Amino acid sequence: MLLPMSPTDSLFLLGESREHPMHVGGLALFTPPEGATAADVRVLFETALTGEQVAPLFCRRARRSVASLGHWGWDTLPDHEVDLGHHIRRNALPRPGGMAELMTLVSRLHGILLDRSRPLWEIHLIEGLADGRYAVYIKIHHALADGASAMRLLRESMSEDPHRRHLPAPWQPRHRLAVVPEPTDAESIAGLTSTLPGMAWDAARSVAGEVAGLVPAAVGTVDRALRGRGGAVSLTAPRTLLNVPIGGARQVAARSVALERIRLLAKHADATINDIVLTMSAGALRSYLRGRGALPADPLIAMVPVSLRGPDTGHESGGESGGNRVGVLMCNLATHLPDPEHRLEMVRTSMNEGKQALRAMSPAQVLAMSALGAAPLGLEMLLGRRGPLRPPFNVVISNVAGPRTPLYWNGARLDALFPLSIPTTGQALNITATSSDDRIAFGLTGCRRAVPDLHPMLDHLGDELDALERAVGL
Amino acid sequence: MLLPMSPTDSLFLLGESREHPMHVGGLALFTPPEGATAADVRVLFETALTGEQVAPLFCRRARRSVASLGHWGWDTLPDHEVDLGHHIRRNALPRPGGMAELMTLVSRLHGILLDRSRPLWEIHLIEGLADGRYAVYIKIHHALADGASAMRLLRESMSEDPHRRHLPAPWQPRHRLAVVPEPTDAESIAGLTSTLPGMAWDAARSVAGEVAGLVPAAVGTVDRALRGRGGAVSLTAPRTLLNVPIGGARQVAARSVALERIRLLAKHADATINDIVLTMSAGALRSYLRGRGALPADPLIAMVPVSLRGPDTGHESGGESGGNRVGVLMCNLATHLPDPEHRLEMVRTSMNEGKQALRAMSPAQVLAMSALGAAPLGLEMLLGRRGPLRPPFNVVISNVAGPRTPLYWNGARLDALFPLSIPTTGQALNITATSSDDRIAFGLTGCRRAVPDLHPMLDHLGDELDALERAVGL
Repeated sequence: MLLPMSPTDSLFLLGESREHPMHVGGLALFTPPEGATAADVRVLFETALTGEQVAPLFCRRARRSVASLGHWGWDTLPDHEVDLGHHIRRNALPRPGGMAELMTLVSRLHGILLDRSRPLWEIHLIEGLADGRYAVYIKIHHALADGASAMRLLRESMSEDPHRRHLPAPWQPRHRLAVVPEPTDAESIAGLTSTLPGMAWDAARSVAGEVAGLVPAAVGTVDRALRGRGGAVSLTAPRTLLNVPIGGARQVAARSVALERIRLLAKHADATINDIVLTMSAGALRSYLRGRGALPADPLIAMVPVSLRGPDTGHESGGESGGNRVGVLMCNLATHLPDPEHRLEMVRTSMNEGKQALRAMSPAQVLAMSALGAAPLGLEMLLGRRGPLRPPFNVVISNVAGPRTPLYWNGARLDALFPLSIPTTGQALNITATSSDDRIAFGLTGCRRAVPDLHPMLDHLGDELDALERAVGL
Repeated sequence: MLLPMSPTDSLFLLGESREHPMHVGGLALFTPPEGATAADVRVLFETALTGEQVAPLFCRRARRSVASLGHWGWDTLPDHEVDLGHHIRRNALPRPGGMAELMTLVSRLHGILLDRSRPLWEIHLIEGLADGRYAVYIKIHHALADGASAMRLLRESMSEDPHRRHLPAPWQPRHRLAVVPEPTDAESIAGLTSTLPGMAWDAARSVAGEVAGLVPAAVGTVDRALRGRGGAVSLTAPRTLLNVPIGGARQVAARSVALERIRLLAKHADATINDIVLTMSAGALRSYLRGRGALPADPLIAMVPVSLRGPDTGHESGGESGGNRVGVLMCNLATHLPDPEHRLEMVRTSMNEGKQALRAMSPAQVLAMSALGAAPLGLEMLLGRRGPLRPPFNVVISNVAGPRTPLYWNGARLDALFPLSIPTTGQALNITATSSDDRIAFGLTGCRRAVPDLHPMLDHLGDELDALERAVGL
């Protein structure tokens, strides 16, 4: 039986091509428990490979048929038809097994299309890190799960208890089974998403998309904005080297910084954590573009997905999860200003104004904007915009809150969880940040041709943080 | 400037999809010179990576434009625009670093599409073999070079002299530059191919294709055969599990046997080396299909590319190179017979009759058949055949002669060179054999769904050789 797929989700299949793989990814780094080595963690994962049970989400295959009038839908394969040897892959790093070799491998893996004749996911087990850690890269098609739920899937296979054992691998069914309540309306469905496991959440998400009549609403909203009739969409983004057609090869870079530094800075500067993440990214983009002699005179504009609490519950959550309203807004990154403190000021103002505008929107409008924010390709695809026009924005910067406590998988500590997203035509770079209990992990995903070397940008992120701390006297 | 691409070559671009990558591959295994280790060989290759010169063939990019009326053509990029970090990739095998891990890695690499916005090749340097050897996997789009010339490219970067050093890496320009004579007609062009280096040969090949008016001729030839009007095409192939639609994932297996055993057997059985290779493959296919309860009552039919000397120069060369006429013929694999000796007898008869038929064909007809043999997809594509019809043949088996002397790359001995080819819809398995100075290497390339485990077939190849030797009293 073919279950229906929401129009938004099927866009990710329809819009996919060799140059635009439409999957999201996450890179997890594990530190072995005391007295154990990476080889022990490897053996645990590899032992799980011999199991036969597969979580329901990972049995789902996208298919279209004459019976479904050519529309995409979901098939559910029985466990034994899911070829685990195809989906779960062992990899090793060449010498010397540093972060550079890991990033090179993940860059390549992230640029490879998933096999459409099978469930749209892969999990790569990666050995050979010289620092004694073990890495796992997970890749899921955006039609199956978005970045946040992909990260959640990884997290859900873990425990806060370092002594807990017999935890299932990420692709295996959870032992606790969720009861999925009947959805009533988009609001209550959205409210469920933070508590349901990935599979059920995904189903709820599809329904929510249909309820909101997502696609037509999105076209209306963006079209209105493009005609200069206000809203959370900007038309002032300059052209940059990031806003070009892209190729299929990817360049990935990732680094994390201590959450405490950012928290302290936010407190001193009367800003949110999200504001700091945006300002760091803005400063890094400025330095990167300057270094290549390509900094435009006008400030760069970022598209920023934000989660909003209802107007009655007070302030927004600065990108942290748990909100039941999600929107995207356009943030002025103030890349034309040399002073980091001025840049932070402008970012904060821009975000506050944007959030006011979003709160004034109807839930359907906000959902519509959020669907576009999920992948900027939506804009291009829906409006048929190509090439010489000014980009609607320069870069997507997301900040997704992660777990607030340390997580363990069978005793191995989850050290970092780097998010990897989807560059598209006109949007050759994506910046996603995810917080864990004590770090914020930045994942940069770019087109290898447009941004052949992302490594300097990691250094620039750190430099910008230093400069901001100095500016507020920390 | 866009150089024209022959219609045959552009078929490989037009016919390509996620499920049908159209590249060929070769896997080379190197034994380090005495006193050296795999790490030394690795360092040699990696040092070559820092060079900036790129051989002309590897600078060629496929492109189509309005100016070329949408036809595919070739662009030549300047060296510095070829992103060597994209094309040449370091890989490592996970523990324990055996042939199983190597085949798993190569299976995956062989299933991944090349990036069309760049020159259509990749070279993978593979470390971590526990037996102390070093592996190199090369992947070239069939539009750029066919399997035989891809293998030749690898060979041409080597020397017969184990003491020779400073040999360029396979992607680097040769020091000896070839003078390309003006082509006069298809015959003389074909005659050149065995002496020219890959790049020039490839250009000559394109011209030859155009001269012969390849594509229309091919349609005529095959169409005639399909209507039962004789020729080297069979219509009696049964349906098997090999003749099904395929997915994008690949399964690769490779093993070599001593050339001397096959030579001796051929001599005792009054057969060619090619006949023995075919009979071994036939027996292996019989055992494999029987093992899966899927052996058809009718014998399997193989499409076999053969090289023919002109009628005046006597006998064909049994698949060895140097001939200036190439054709394909249909061989009855006698998989319905339990006795290997009877099978060899039928294979030999079938091949002899087929070669007689080929000799009676005009050069244009032979060339046309040969173009189809290059990839069986040609049949499907040209005739629009799909699905329920009986397959025109069951499997492609090629036997390409390699170098007759041991080859070395900067002292490292080329131990084995396994050919990897292209499965297509309806042809889920391809068997290619290549001889070196003392071994024949079998490379099996299959669709991972249709033939999920090719390993047993490697054992069956050996069993069949044993049985044949016993049958002739060796």
